[in-house]
Amino acid sequence: MSDKSVLDVLDKKTSRRRFLRDGGVVALVAGVASACKPAATKAAQAPATPTTGQTGGTMGPHDTSAGATAQSAADAMDAMHEKGIKAFPAKTSGLGNQLMQPKIDNGVKVYELTAKKIQWETEPGRFVEAWAYNDQVPGPQIRVKEGDRVRIVLNNQLPESTAVHFHGLELPNDQDGVPFITQPPVKSGQTYKYEFTVPNAGSHMYHSHHNSAKQVGLGLLGAFIVEPKELTAHDRVDVDEVFVLNDGAHGYTFNGKSFPATQPIVAKVGQKVRIRYMNEGMMIHPMHLHGMHMTVIAKDGWPVPAPWKCDTLNVAPGERWDVIVNCTNPGTWAFHCHILPLAESDHGMFGMVTALVVQK
Amino acid sequence: MSDKSVLDVLDKKTSRRRFLRDGGVVALVAGVASACKPAATKAAQAPATPTTGQTGGTMGPHDTSAGATAQSAADAMDAMHEKGIKAFPAKTSGLGNQLMQPKIDNGVKVYELTAKKIQWETEPGRFVEAWAYNDQVPGPQIRVKEGDRVRIVLNNQLPESTAVHFHGLELPNDQDGVPFITQPPVKSGQTYKYEFTVPNAGSHMYHSHHNSAKQVGLGLLGAFIVEPKELTAHDRVDVDEVFVLNDGAHGYTFNGKSFPATQPIVAKVGQKVRIRYMNEGMMIHPMHLHGMHMTVIAKDGWPVPAPWKCDTLNVAPGERWDVIVNCTNPGTWAFHCHILPLAESDHGMFGMVTALVVQK
Amino acid sequence: MSDKSVLDVLDKKTSRRRFLRDGGVVALVAGVASACKPAATKAAQAPATPTTGQTGGTMGPHDTSAGATAQSAADAMDAMHEKGIKAFPAKTSGLGNQLMQPKIDNGVKVYELTAKKIQWETEPGRFVEAWAYNDQVPGPQIRVKEGDRVRIVLNNQLPESTAVHFHGLELPNDQDGVPFITQPPVKSGQTYKYEFTVPNAGSHMYHSHHNSAKQVGLGLLGAFIVEPKELTAHDRVDVDEVFVLNDGAHGYTFNGKSFPATQPIVAKVGQKVRIRYMNEGMMIHPMHLHGMHMTVIAKDGWPVPAPWKCDTLNVAPGERWDVIVNCTNPGTWAFHCHILPLAESDHGMFGMVTALVVQK
Repeated sequence: MSDKSVLDVLDKKTSRRRFLRDGGVVALVAGVASACKPAATKAAQAPATPTTGQTGGTMGPHDTSAGATAQSAADAMDAMHEKGIKAFPAKTSGLGNQLMQPKIDNGVKVYELTAKKIQWETEPGRFVEAWAYNDQVPGPQIRVKEGDRVRIVLNNQLPESTAVHFHGLELPNDQDGVPFITQPPVKSGQTYKYEFTVPNAGSHMYHSHHNSAKQVGLGLLGAFIVEPKELTAHDRVDVDEVFVLNDGAHGYTFNGKSFPATQPIVAKVGQKVRIRYMNEGMMIHPMHLHGMHMTVIAKDGWPVPAPWKCDTLNVAPGERWDVIVNCTNPGTWAFHCHILPLAESDHGMFGMVTALVVQK
Repeated sequence: MSDKSVLDVLDKKTSRRRFLRDGGVVALVAGVASACKPAATKAAQAPATPTTGQTGGTMGPHDTSAGATAQSAADAMDAMHEKGIKAFPAKTSGLGNQLMQPKIDNGVKVYELTAKKIQWETEPGRFVEAWAYNDQVPGPQIRVKEGDRVRIVLNNQLPESTAVHFHGLELPNDQDGVPFITQPPVKSGQTYKYEFTVPNAGSHMYHSHHNSAKQVGLGLLGAFIVEPKELTAHDRVDVDEVFVLNDGAHGYTFNGKSFPATQPIVAKVGQKVRIRYMNEGMMIHPMHLHGMHMTVIAKDGWPVPAPWKCDTLNVAPGERWDVIVNCTNPGTWAFHCHILPLAESDHGMFGMVTALVVQK
Repeated sequence: MSDKSVLDVLDKKTSRRRFLRDGGVVALVAGVASACKPAATKAAQAPATPTTGQTGGTMGPHDTSAGATAQSAADAMDAMHEKGIKAFPAKTSGLGNQLMQPKIDNGVKVYELTAKKIQWETEPGRFVEAWAYNDQVPGPQIRVKEGDRVRIVLNNQLPESTAVHFHGLELPNDQDGVPFITQPPVKSGQTYKYEFTVPNAGSHMYHSHHNSAKQVGLGLLGAFIVEPKELTAHDRVDVDEVFVLNDGAHGYTFNGKSFPATQPIVAKVGQKVRIRYMNEGMMIHPMHLHGMHMTVIAKDGWPVPAPWKCDTLNVAPGERWDVIVNCTNPGTWAFHCHILPLAESDHGMFGMVTALVVQK
């Protein structure tokens, strides 16, 4: 996929996102529901409101005041759940993982990264201190081709030293970004240049490797994607998504946002979606997609010798997994970490939840 | 395996279980030990009591009162360990994961699930509040065939709303069971019907997808097994076991029970056992089988392209893994989660421990 | 690899280790840096001190006293990081996982294991109580061949009972080491003999299976490696390393030591390194190697049907994974668990960190 096509996709997604926000997920679901296969529609008898197609039972216990109180508490809980889902995808300030356009300097692609402290909105109204590259969490997406000559200029505006490690790239040792092993730390106020010819293709990451438990936890991380010289079928997909998982000081996030501010993946029936999972947190996250399976095609950027299928993929810290979803099943599909306390409480869904929306 | 053959197996297991409980695992072990290969028997010199075939050393320190106290504490610890193992498999009230027979309505297999609050005995004398389907934790096992028409009737007798998600099944969106995304919540006292043609085969699950961290944690979960239209060698096994792992409010459990109330898997030498692991908890559980390896044949219901062998299989929340054990090695084999603090304390084995008993 | 060749490797490693300690990692890094490929050297402009090749910015904020204080705190942090790395590989008393030479008794390889309480130095100056085999954590490495006749003599000098389980070996049941299931507990002061013909090849472990959460946590564990009768290409490697992960009472350790007392793996460009990961802890550890990928060749001692590549390998408790690293990339490469809070704090790297040193 060329840089241009990625930008096109991002443009399209933005407008889809606006549609989702304006129309609301409920409208979208209704549209999908009305388009369901005849058999399913006949079978489901799924009512538009809870009162149709359901038998209410005697409701006896609810006539007592204790029952009424219980029912009222239950209704209040449902209302919180509904509110969260209707707010999805919620608008927040700031968007991470935006594709970055390099400057070209004599054939070298130059990416400037400024690390500094910012306020970051993870969900509506929740602002956290973030240490960010270019005011984004995750940092801007760097997407290059195998064999490209690349320069990364790190400008440290943080209150402490830092350095950038290119996680997964098989670089010359002095470009590896580990202070006191491969370079001096980049002190506050300093600028440091990395430059290399891009080696192995795949879904990689860049992040701080100095005081990293804190610095990565606060947001100094981003996707570093290397497209192969020889494109394969998996490189020609309709939607190509990066999915950075995190679980540190910012809460439980996908691409720096918590539900309902996470972004849905949007595709059309018949389209092929590639998801690039990257775990920058401290916990494993078994990612579960409803409605369709995922075919695992790469681990840490390396093609797997025999692709395998699953609906729940365990992603450990530092791992990257690439999967393909063939969008055969229309609808809005929940898509979340299956450690349930990281995805839902009695206040409704939160944290590591998003959706794959497959439009007819 | 037909429904009937499964019932036969369950019947047989019940009587084996009775035998184990009555005879005690010690008697069984003795039988196995006496049948050991000559070389091993000759080698082991394993005494029936600690005084034979062992050299006691000087025992000097134990003559002092401090030593005697230490030895007495050690003996007390051993006695607790022995008591737990001799109690295995301990009798408790309630048995989860019982195969459910559907009613047939005009060719549709109808399964009724009543969700309600119960008391559940996880180990002898330990009763916990459970939210259960049909008074079982895990709920009754639903076992159908690819292409079957199935109706699930959910009757909610809980104090709050709920819904059923069929985890792993690629259903039409409106049957996916996620309140406010694919259906309204099913309120307390209400009944809701799901109906669909069973899609992809494999080891799947059903569980609540509303306030799920609490509801699944309290027991609203069960196995949903879909046999393929075309049976393979792996579908013709001698013993077919479901192994639901959980680690929530009920403690560390296999199929809703903690050691010593867990059920052993019982097979004969030469038999083929299929185990279907399903993790409904919040933690990974690396399942370790002693004495024989497992061959992994499916992930989340999908056959793996190249089966692989292991003795410790890491099962993450939401994942299902199917393995085959060829029972070549007679004996009573410990079988447990290898996060040791979830399986043993100084009071003896507890939690996530059971056994595979291979009878000569 | 024959026992002799392993000893050779260990000898060589000892001298390399001395070299590293004496010369300091910085000298070694400098050597590697000067040998970098021209392109990289040209690109990097990596300065010997932070003042060269970096633009210091205005440094304005640092002129104020608040800024000066912040800079001073940052410098102090850097100094702690530097100190830790310069101390690597730090000298501590005691070395675990030393290859054990058996006595030969009428064709039987006899290994004596004495379990007792010791003090163990995990990093310079940090002494912890350990329960150890032969005064080592991990216990001495047992390395035998498929089909060997082996006797393990356990001498229990602990204050409580114990037993040895051979994790991964498919032994006759009465040699499985589980008190009250396959043998009586071995009481304090007693000796117990295991004897068997070595079955399945691969990277296995031995450890206590009595009060195991405590006893394994305190160090009663070791590597049990079985070389296959028919050697494969993977058995003829230049460096063959065992990597026991632990996270219990002793902190976060590799082979019983925490950074900076962990041992680096040392190899030359063009050499082939085999790493045998073994997790004896309670947590998953995603092991991340910088600079080169790992090719996974075996799981729990069983060859994988199709080797696959990664740079971050998730190792769960009880699992063993064997990987090959082809040392194509010279330099000192960080090598650590990617749960960052187990590897680095604002005091510098600690715990689960080591290095792969690839010498030109």
